[in-house]
Amino acid sequence: MKRGIIGIDIGGTNIKVALMLGRKITRRKKIPSLADSGIERSIAQIRRAIGPLRKKASAIGIGIAGIIDSRQGAVRFSPNLRGWNNVPLGKILRREYGLPVRVLNDVNAICLGEWKYGAARGHDNVFLFTLGTGVGGAAICEGKLLFGANGFAGEFGHTTISLNGPKCMCGQCGHLERYAGAKYIVARAKRKMKRSKSSLAEHSVLTPEIIARVAKRGDPVAREVFSEVGYYIGVGIANILALFDPDIVIISGGIARAGRILFDPIRETVNRSVLGAGYRRFKILPAKLGDDAGILGAALFAQLTQRNTQV
Amino acid sequence: MKRGIIGIDIGGTNIKVALMLGRKITRRKKIPSLADSGIERSIAQIRRAIGPLRKKASAIGIGIAGIIDSRQGAVRFSPNLRGWNNVPLGKILRREYGLPVRVLNDVNAICLGEWKYGAARGHDNVFLFTLGTGVGGAAICEGKLLFGANGFAGEFGHTTISLNGPKCMCGQCGHLERYAGAKYIVARAKRKMKRSKSSLAEHSVLTPEIIARVAKRGDPVAREVFSEVGYYIGVGIANILALFDPDIVIISGGIARAGRILFDPIRETVNRSVLGAGYRRFKILPAKLGDDAGILGAALFAQLTQRNTQV
Repeated sequence: MKRGIIGIDIGGTNIKVALMLGRKITRRKKIPSLADSGIERSIAQIRRAIGPLRKKASAIGIGIAGIIDSRQGAVRFSPNLRGWNNVPLGKILRREYGLPVRVLNDVNAICLGEWKYGAARGHDNVFLFTLGTGVGGAAICEGKLLFGANGFAGEFGHTTISLNGPKCMCGQCGHLERYAGAKYIVARAKRKMKRSKSSLAEHSVLTPEIIARVAKRGDPVAREVFSEVGYYIGVGIANILALFDPDIVIISGGIARAGRILFDPIRETVNRSVLGAGYRRFKILPAKLGDDAGILGAALFAQLTQRNTQV
Repeated sequence: MKRGIIGIDIGGTNIKVALMLGRKITRRKKIPSLADSGIERSIAQIRRAIGPLRKKASAIGIGIAGIIDSRQGAVRFSPNLRGWNNVPLGKILRREYGLPVRVLNDVNAICLGEWKYGAARGHDNVFLFTLGTGVGGAAICEGKLLFGANGFAGEFGHTTISLNGPKCMCGQCGHLERYAGAKYIVARAKRKMKRSKSSLAEHSVLTPEIIARVAKRGDPVAREVFSEVGYYIGVGIANILALFDPDIVIISGGIARAGRILFDPIRETVNRSVLGAGYRRFKILPAKLGDDAGILGAALFAQLTQRNTQV
């Protein structure tokens, strides 16, 4: 029997696990990560998640938000897992299961998944970013996933686009995340609703997805929100194009599915502002694999490094 | 007799050429590039520069400012060489001399030189930028020089750090070059001199190097110029650290030799503003090879790709 690879996506709320057989994801499972109950409890949950899949697998790949030392398989710091500082997760699980275990940053995992099987297939220079609570990022440079010296590369959300801009959660001013993070998109909509009538008022709770839906129905306030957010993201992408010169930029996360309401202002801003637009080929596209990208990418990471392929 | 590699640095004013033997640069020569006299004249000058070195060389490497297609050895566009659009320089010279000819962007050449023999030796993730008339940049990612999809990677000067900042030469607002380019440093000093007394007034012509010298002697106006420029550069470097996570950032170009007057405000800004400062190892250092870096890097590029080593 051909063995599969276990892909795991560890978040602050849930641990998602699945077995990857070839390109197929099977035996999907989701259990609580119990991130607030301490490291031991969370690792016990990871074991539970792996449980019966162990005998069907030849390796384990794990994606986690935060600063991951992928060489050592260690979690240096994770915003979602309180107290996880310098946890040698790879070593712990390797010892227990006798299988190769690889650990990488969650957005790197998503990028790897979209690169091998999704929206970025066949491209050598890729930048992917995620729009959600935070704004994460990852890069493939000349056919290799970029980890950086400290496992920190791709932190798109915490780049400054406006010196005197509003303060970000991290304490700095004018970071992209301060404009494109979910709660700031919602706050922007709420500010505008105070000034103008909008059918957004019919919703007791607002999310970027709801604002996108209302915008698509033509509501001018919701449209304005996306036009402005798209502009900020466009400025950020123009910086990415200037620095990385990718042939494809992939936007992942819930609102990446908003379609033209988001992509039109982004593309317009990028085309107007990127240096040497006439000499460039590049595409800006939504991700394809949805929530599977992370699990798939984590499994792929374990598989590719097992074969000693450069990632 | 062991043959060397010819390294050429083609600028808007001069063509610099030398023979690289091992790590040694010999037979240095400089002739006018005649950039305004048309492509034919400039190529004739390149031939003149190569001239007698040809028989001592096994390959030719050329660095040129602009958008270079290094796979094809073609100059797509160069700001310094008027009319050079899609010039297959590599092919032209290869045909003529029967030697392998490689062409790359000048800042990429400098980066390669500093990486192999200079300030960035031994590092796998490097970002180098040049402070001069313009602000150029280049990156080594996971041990590979980053060209990008269109040969455009590393355009640090044309990244936005301030949405509503002043207009850059390229037409966009708030680009780093608009703060750190030589003429903007000088303009900043002149604005300040109108408001406050400064020994800068003793100089009939100002350059960033002169301002740095006066600042070192304690002149408060000149110091303020460098403190502000260092802040802007620091914000830019914080963006680079967030995106590339290099273990070393190299500053090249004349004013990189200004020492602490420039590096103190840069380091202070970076340490204060970079995400996860406590989890990072990185250094910010001046380049080591001076004007030789470009010629050396160009020669290295020809040498390394000749041996089919990945660059």
